[in-house]
Amino acid sequence: MNYRIIIAYDGTDYLGWQMQAPTPTIQGVITAALERLEGGPVTLHGAGRTDSGVHAEGQVASFQLKREWNGEELRRAINGNLPPEIRVLEAATAVDDFHARFDARDKTYRYQIYQAEVMNPLLARYAWHFPFPLDRERLIIDGQALLGTHDFTAFTVASCETTTRVRTVSDFRLETNGPLWSLYFSADGFLRYMVRTMVASLIEANRGRLKADSISALIGSRDRTLIGTAAPAKGLTLMKVGY
Amino acid sequence: MNYRIIIAYDGTDYLGWQMQAPTPTIQGVITAALERLEGGPVTLHGAGRTDSGVHAEGQVASFQLKREWNGEELRRAINGNLPPEIRVLEAATAVDDFHARFDARDKTYRYQIYQAEVMNPLLARYAWHFPFPLDRERLIIDGQALLGTHDFTAFTVASCETTTRVRTVSDFRLETNGPLWSLYFSADGFLRYMVRTMVASLIEANRGRLKADSISALIGSRDRTLIGTAAPAKGLTLMKVGY
Repeated sequence: MNYRIIIAYDGTDYLGWQMQAPTPTIQGVITAALERLEGGPVTLHGAGRTDSGVHAEGQVASFQLKREWNGEELRRAINGNLPPEIRVLEAATAVDDFHARFDARDKTYRYQIYQAEVMNPLLARYAWHFPFPLDRERLIIDGQALLGTHDFTAFTVASCETTTRVRTVSDFRLETNGPLWSLYFSADGFLRYMVRTMVASLIEANRGRLKADSISALIGSRDRTLIGTAAPAKGLTLMKVGY
Repeated sequence: MNYRIIIAYDGTDYLGWQMQAPTPTIQGVITAALERLEGGPVTLHGAGRTDSGVHAEGQVASFQLKREWNGEELRRAINGNLPPEIRVLEAATAVDDFHARFDARDKTYRYQIYQAEVMNPLLARYAWHFPFPLDRERLIIDGQALLGTHDFTAFTVASCETTTRVRTVSDFRLETNGPLWSLYFSADGFLRYMVRTMVASLIEANRGRLKADSISALIGSRDRTLIGTAAPAKGLTLMKVGY
């Protein structure tokens, strides 16, 4: 039987999604839990290969098991074999050819910035502390410039292995709750470090430090050296995968 | 000079506010930071003696230093000597006789309950996971019964040393954000474990398991044995102290 699960995790103490023995990864820990239930090898396909320290509230993964499970029982059985920082929110059977990564149509990430002089320690694991004043309107306008179908080479790393660096960003949205600013990005797919590099470019533009005339010019340059360090992993959370 | 600071902390790894060598406490860590700046002993008075594992977004403390400090410089100097899970949000000079504990007029605590079948790992440090359905209207009605001036003996521990167990609860408020339910309690003062025991009683009433006819009858009984275990510390945060 083919199964599909929705997963949430606190990625603080994990080296990302992708299994790479002997380091603790989300994929590794969930695979080990599934193999205990199956009593044999299981291959787990995740929709998004989140990087070291990145969190999820809606990661999706698929896998095959020999035994037929009821969704709720499977969810409980997996959670019983996982540490509390990784939780299966939903489990269900899927059609035979469902594949969490290849069938994903869009993904939504949230990036949290804490916009105040002193950090709130209760948000320190999940938001980037940015102590300098940001211009809300400017952030929204610059974010809109990321929308559409572009070659996003300027926003990834040379080592990013992919056949094309063209992606379609379908949504950018800013939600603010006092000093906590949440930036939401949706696209048909994201290149490696793309969200965190987009956040870094928006902050640079906001502070008048962009090494290009505009976000559009930056995209057009296809030059990664124009943007500084990507925003820290801890602010990033994979929120949703659409099929 | 007399000083007043507002403090936020993640209490997960601390044995509460009050200094008790050699365990790590919030008061102990801040006192050590102040003594490094002062080069001599400092006595730190906190408004609320939060218990082990309880958090704060608005704890207030006062202390005397020989040297005259500008508020902003003092805040930075203290933060430079504190671990990231404890932050001074504001520092300022205070009138000579200001005392954070004795001058406090009211305190507001927040208790967070995560009301869903599976816990969100990103909230696991700051909310109590309660997987059974709660009745929103019932919770609000029962919470109102806590308001007013009462002897709250039923909501504390025998070891609570205080001249009187009469307190005035001035506000109860429920805010819900999806599965995250935030209960706010304001009073002129709280007895030891009082908020967490009030939360436990509200949950018991909601589940039809209260060992009294009503919350009012429970208050009237002055009998602590009628309520089960207090709600876990991690859901509790001291939000504000009024003067």
